Amino acid sequence: MSKKDRVIGIDFGATFIKLAKLDLKGKMIEKRSFKTKAFTSRDGLIKEILKETQSLIGKDKSRVLGVGVGVPGQVDYKKGLIYNLTNVKGWKRVPLKAILKKGLGLPVYVDNDANVAALGEAEWGAAVNCRNIICITLGSGVGGGIIIDGKVYHGRSYSAGEIGHICIEREGPSCNCGGRGCIEAFVGNTYIVREVVKRLKKGKRSIILKLAGGKYSNITPKVIDEASRKGDSFAKGIWKEAGSNIGIFLTSVINILNPEIIVIGGGVSKTGRVLFDAIRKTIDERAIDIFLKG
Amino acid sequence: MSKKDRVIGIDFGATFIKLAKLDLKGKMIEKRSFKTKAFTSRDGLIKEILKETQSLIGKDKSRVLGVGVGVPGQVDYKKGLIYNLTNVKGWKRVPLKAILKKGLGLPVYVDNDANVAALGEAEWGAAVNCRNIICITLGSGVGGGIIIDGKVYHGRSYSAGEIGHICIEREGPSCNCGGRGCIEAFVGNTYIVREVVKRLKKGKRSIILKLAGGKYSNITPKVIDEASRKGDSFAKGIWKEAGSNIGIFLTSVINILNPEIIVIGGGVSKTGRVLFDAIRKTIDERAIDIFLKG
Repeated sequence: MSKKDRVIGIDFGATFIKLAKLDLKGKMIEKRSFKTKAFTSRDGLIKEILKETQSLIGKDKSRVLGVGVGVPGQVDYKKGLIYNLTNVKGWKRVPLKAILKKGLGLPVYVDNDANVAALGEAEWGAAVNCRNIICITLGSGVGGGIIIDGKVYHGRSYSAGEIGHICIEREGPSCNCGGRGCIEAFVGNTYIVREVVKRLKKGKRSIILKLAGGKYSNITPKVIDEASRKGDSFAKGIWKEAGSNIGIFLTSVINILNPEIIVIGGGVSKTGRVLFDAIRKTIDERAIDIFLKG
Repeated sequence: MSKKDRVIGIDFGATFIKLAKLDLKGKMIEKRSFKTKAFTSRDGLIKEILKETQSLIGKDKSRVLGVGVGVPGQVDYKKGLIYNLTNVKGWKRVPLKAILKKGLGLPVYVDNDANVAALGEAEWGAAVNCRNIICITLGSGVGGGIIIDGKVYHGRSYSAGEIGHICIEREGPSCNCGGRGCIEAFVGNTYIVREVVKRLKKGKRSIILKLAGGKYSNITPKVIDEASRKGDSFAKGIWKEAGSNIGIFLTSVINILNPEIIVIGGGVSKTGRVLFDAIRKTIDERAIDIFLKG
């Protein structure tokens, strides 16, 4: 029997599906990706995942220890059963682990993407040597993974870590989850862009629209960030506000879970200092942690 | 060596200190209590705790397995070191475990009161056979204990479970913890009573003041509850509002921790149906738990 020194990782996103072959130290050997929405049927998408994975494995099958998949939704990780993917249609109650295992003839693990991101940070990333970790992702939504005592915490029905749905305003804006005033409804990409467009249309002065080529529909968090880096005070204000809201919800997380570390990832997190300064300031002002307060 | 079949439990409250001798099935054999504030100095209070505990142990010392103490504040449970008691003056950095162990010659355990309450519910109470438990206490403050995978979860600096300091309104009322809009600042006893007095003074119709003997200073949650049970619609409205706020904060707790069970205790929890109906309704409307939603 040959040495098992390769693993396959699959990042199943609502926009892209990214696949990689890695060694046991986490070094990337080969990668590929394709557009999730190129396949309208679930079965077509599964076939493509199988095909790409097999092609990535190539002649290495005997060296592959296993295949790990992170998906954007609720998963019974023991059975590898996807309950639902929020932003990919037709993915209710899909036994993805069983399907891939049968198709590939290899051990397969499936879990929520934020959970496996947290595991990644614990094993290779910003949270090495920590036992109690919160990992949040700021993107279209606000995702979360919780590691307690070194293990992913899944909760009773695998919905633990739905950190984007902590309420910060009782009667705040409606959220896709059915709740109101969730942090996701304040700092999700769509919300931020919508708010910026609304305020610009009301006459706020900013270089954002110019940077977006004069089209409201071209405005993205990246464009807002560009404006902010150029000193645009309206754009900076948007990130300060987002940072303050993120700080408020993280204060709740800190007060309940008192973690060793909070790792912040995802697109919006690339925004840089103005956002992170506002997050830190708010947590410093509000959170209880006795060591934090000195 | 005689059989160890007795334990001593001490509930260190800001108002009363209650002590009990129990058998290993949790049956109470003897109990006593005294007023915490009868002792103005910390050392005087410690002496009284030692005296009462020794008197409670009596001739049973060789039968006592150990002494467990729950205190209202942050505790390093490993060292048995109290960092701070929020509502008892002069209790900063007190090595209570070492003091009692020396004075009694018995094993001693000290932890936060909400944490040991959660352990109690897990071992003898409403959460028997559950592994992931949230226990909240509704009183002057809103306390919380978290049990994950059968063990009390303490967090990095023993401040996990400060559930009363989840924010439900970004710019809500200031809270004693230094934050704003914490659930405790909406449904803590003092807040509820203050709000009722304010609204009555504004002319709201209710039998509350009559039940309180015509004195605003006699109004307590118990009196408000009495009015509510007699059909007073203003009083019922107060509990509905409290229940809705509790439901909103518990929705955040459920979305993050997805526990098997939430146990609600403490004085305000005796209020009964009108409060619990409002809590349930709000959680049903807002929380994500896929099994909860069916």
